[in-house]
Amino acid sequence: MSILPPPDFNLLFNPGSIALIGASNNIGKWGAIVFLNILLGGYQGRVYPVNQKEETVLGHKAYPKAYQIPDLVDLAIIAIPAQWVMEAVQDCIRKGVHMAIVITSDFSETGEQGALLEKELTEAARSSGMRLVGPNTMGIFSASANLTALMPPVRPKRGQVSLVSQSGNIGTQILGWGEKFGVGFSKYVSSGNEGDLRSEDYLSFFGKDPETKVILTYIEGLDDGRKFFESARKITHSKPIIVFKGGKTPAGARAAKSHSGAMAGVVELYEAAFKQAGLLWASTIEEMLEWAAAFSSFPLPRGNRVGILTRGGGWGVITADACMQMGLEVPPLDDTLIQALDKILPSYWSKGNPVDMVASISMDDYLSCLEELISWEKVDAVISLSGDAGPLSGILSDVRKKGEGLIPAEKLDHIAGQISTVRAQIYQRVCELMEIYNKPVLSVGSNLVRGKGGTQADISLPQFRTPERAAKTAGRLYQYYRYRRALGRE
Amino acid sequence: MSILPPPDFNLLFNPGSIALIGASNNIGKWGAIVFLNILLGGYQGRVYPVNQKEETVLGHKAYPKAYQIPDLVDLAIIAIPAQWVMEAVQDCIRKGVHMAIVITSDFSETGEQGALLEKELTEAARSSGMRLVGPNTMGIFSASANLTALMPPVRPKRGQVSLVSQSGNIGTQILGWGEKFGVGFSKYVSSGNEGDLRSEDYLSFFGKDPETKVILTYIEGLDDGRKFFESARKITHSKPIIVFKGGKTPAGARAAKSHSGAMAGVVELYEAAFKQAGLLWASTIEEMLEWAAAFSSFPLPRGNRVGILTRGGGWGVITADACMQMGLEVPPLDDTLIQALDKILPSYWSKGNPVDMVASISMDDYLSCLEELISWEKVDAVISLSGDAGPLSGILSDVRKKGEGLIPAEKLDHIAGQISTVRAQIYQRVCELMEIYNKPVLSVGSNLVRGKGGTQADISLPQFRTPERAAKTAGRLYQYYRYRRALGRE
Repeated sequence: MSILPPPDFNLLFNPGSIALIGASNNIGKWGAIVFLNILLGGYQGRVYPVNQKEETVLGHKAYPKAYQIPDLVDLAIIAIPAQWVMEAVQDCIRKGVHMAIVITSDFSETGEQGALLEKELTEAARSSGMRLVGPNTMGIFSASANLTALMPPVRPKRGQVSLVSQSGNIGTQILGWGEKFGVGFSKYVSSGNEGDLRSEDYLSFFGKDPETKVILTYIEGLDDGRKFFESARKITHSKPIIVFKGGKTPAGARAAKSHSGAMAGVVELYEAAFKQAGLLWASTIEEMLEWAAAFSSFPLPRGNRVGILTRGGGWGVITADACMQMGLEVPPLDDTLIQALDKILPSYWSKGNPVDMVASISMDDYLSCLEELISWEKVDAVISLSGDAGPLSGILSDVRKKGEGLIPAEKLDHIAGQISTVRAQIYQRVCELMEIYNKPVLSVGSNLVRGKGGTQADISLPQFRTPERAAKTAGRLYQYYRYRRALGRE
Repeated sequence: MSILPPPDFNLLFNPGSIALIGASNNIGKWGAIVFLNILLGGYQGRVYPVNQKEETVLGHKAYPKAYQIPDLVDLAIIAIPAQWVMEAVQDCIRKGVHMAIVITSDFSETGEQGALLEKELTEAARSSGMRLVGPNTMGIFSASANLTALMPPVRPKRGQVSLVSQSGNIGTQILGWGEKFGVGFSKYVSSGNEGDLRSEDYLSFFGKDPETKVILTYIEGLDDGRKFFESARKITHSKPIIVFKGGKTPAGARAAKSHSGAMAGVVELYEAAFKQAGLLWASTIEEMLEWAAAFSSFPLPRGNRVGILTRGGGWGVITADACMQMGLEVPPLDDTLIQALDKILPSYWSKGNPVDMVASISMDDYLSCLEELISWEKVDAVISLSGDAGPLSGILSDVRKKGEGLIPAEKLDHIAGQISTVRAQIYQRVCELMEIYNKPVLSVGSNLVRGKGGTQADISLPQFRTPERAAKTAGRLYQYYRYRRALGRE
């Protein structure tokens, strides 16, 4: 085998021009859906449809062969049946293409014949200086190029998280959920069968990529585990990598083999190796997204002590339980802090941690309590369950809809305006407090909104659906802090 | 102590008339918010505000004292400061009220003085034939009476699930989440400090209530554990009870004590006792809701074997893992079934369980595969990850918004119409298949819609956010089936 040409990931994530082989006018075909995704995603480079039967595809002049395109082609995307892919790859080689995405499936994931074809394809490409994503990939996303070269119609929120996934469905689902979880993406690769480029190649690139702050990876199996873990270990001391492993059980491993051809291996060995390399092991996709949001936006807690602020006693109980179950401490308050909070809260507040504000509605009081708690030297993070405008906001829309005349309209408008202002103020103040004290505030079930303009503290503020999720996330932030500290990085 | 008058829960859940003591025109006060909640929730009975200073409250004639109301009062709701509650209770006794909800806090949860007052209150009420909900309760909900006598402005979805919660915040949050999780509620009680009526009293009533099919309970501590478990055991053989326990750790227990005054006890003892009494032990509030949705709507699986239907390989892997981790089996397909599926799917489908339909877009094929799988005698339940109209639906709105001219508008309308029809057809067919084969189909991440009119199969169809959640739910359904079978009930 000749020397492996190093992959130029700039061609993949920032191509100036794309040839789409198999582009189609038929919206029932992937060649049409991928093309629509690219066009509607806002990609500003040139796209050349390659189609042997059509003059134009979706309004663009089509070319029968990739090498007939009268322009440089940075990236080829191939979405035609498997038996014609080799010919298309050879056309691309003739054109001088150095990077291609092979969407087409029916390769090593379906059996020996497909595996042979995949091997031939890879060797043909490599020996001509071309590198391949896939085959059997769902495509890639790149925020910097506005490029959504994907089968599913996802329009990811933009940010600093990058993802490589051995399952295209899971990867694109993760992208799609980003908005909901407050996770913005920089780059995504569905690595498919990894006939040529593998997870560790993308990982190494993300490790060096200045646009990537947090890395996610969905793994079913590794052909070269040693290389993967070596690549990962070089990254984790400066950027967190969150991993989710599919194929943890015999039934899952059997399914993985039939789908990506991956050998899932023994889960305990994987888990141990991942942890040793400093990766964070997520047990659900939702956890992965919650942690990604937190690592993108929060300072790391420098200890395991959590202050809890709540407006409802039960939620305080659940949060305290969840913290302890994660190995976090919920330190009892000391007298000085109790006295400070006494000045803010009604006499029958909980006098403990969780700080139960006992159904107090005032948002000024909430912010005062929050600052007392986060500034206390005995906590390293705060979980806040009270940062919303209380029950008033919910009842307002109901009064408007059904309670005509009960309360004057101008009074309702006034209250609604206050709530919206308060939410923006709290958002800004929570961000400021995190900056001032360099501790994370994990907000649960809130509806905080980023204020319009003029804010210095432009940290984005993920919000958690439940206190259990906030507690687990706080635990992972601390776990990563400890890992870095052990390496002398904190 | 005199003989305890039995509580007449009909007065609580179906009152013909209500006195609201502390009703207020000031929207910053709970007495106004609770009143608005009752009025806007659609309650059709009579409501009498009791207020010593106002002539009218929110347009209703007010009375200085409860006993001045010129009508029978079935239910009193008390929302005034603690020091005046005893007087209000005595006014209610004088009026002949037999059931009261004491919203007011600052009783046993804040210390000895409060505990004493709570005891006096309870004894005064009981000795005069009146029973109390609370104090320190957030109120109740009753679907049959359209009664939302609650502090928070929740408008629960209606259904057959009833809930008693020792935390008002958690209870009302559960109600609020019902819509999202497909859980409809019949009755809800925030039991507060349980000075008089306790969780087991409400539980016993729900056990006999024909409008209640599934029971949920949030517990922090039990004053009389034996009585609770005896009550529960009598119910679980015919109705599932799902329990969530707060105060599982020292920090959580400390918080519980300051909030509801409950002694949390040793969690292992609780868990063992709950399980022995046949209760289902949820580890998060979200799980509780997912299981409630499933128990409300699905037939119980009569074994632990699951068929998985997916359009993406990775999700199949995760689902198979999640099933095995829950103790469920994912049996390999036999030849007959493989041959039947061969006729429907492209040649390179997975040929195994999970049945990976390999990115097939056709919904007819989906339904055919689903029927093959659910009718197979070797599965007891199906988890379906494919019951949506595929990527087409997502891209349509994008084409409309940004792709003017790319595809003719009438073609877009046609496709959109098809998708909507298909979703309704699938919804109906999935319900029919569950009836025919008497096995549950747990749909993940779908957007199925109930068709308009004319459907025989009017089962509501909960849908799960992730396959892990579906698998865990299937495990609990089977656990409950086994419990009932051991009792000779299946």
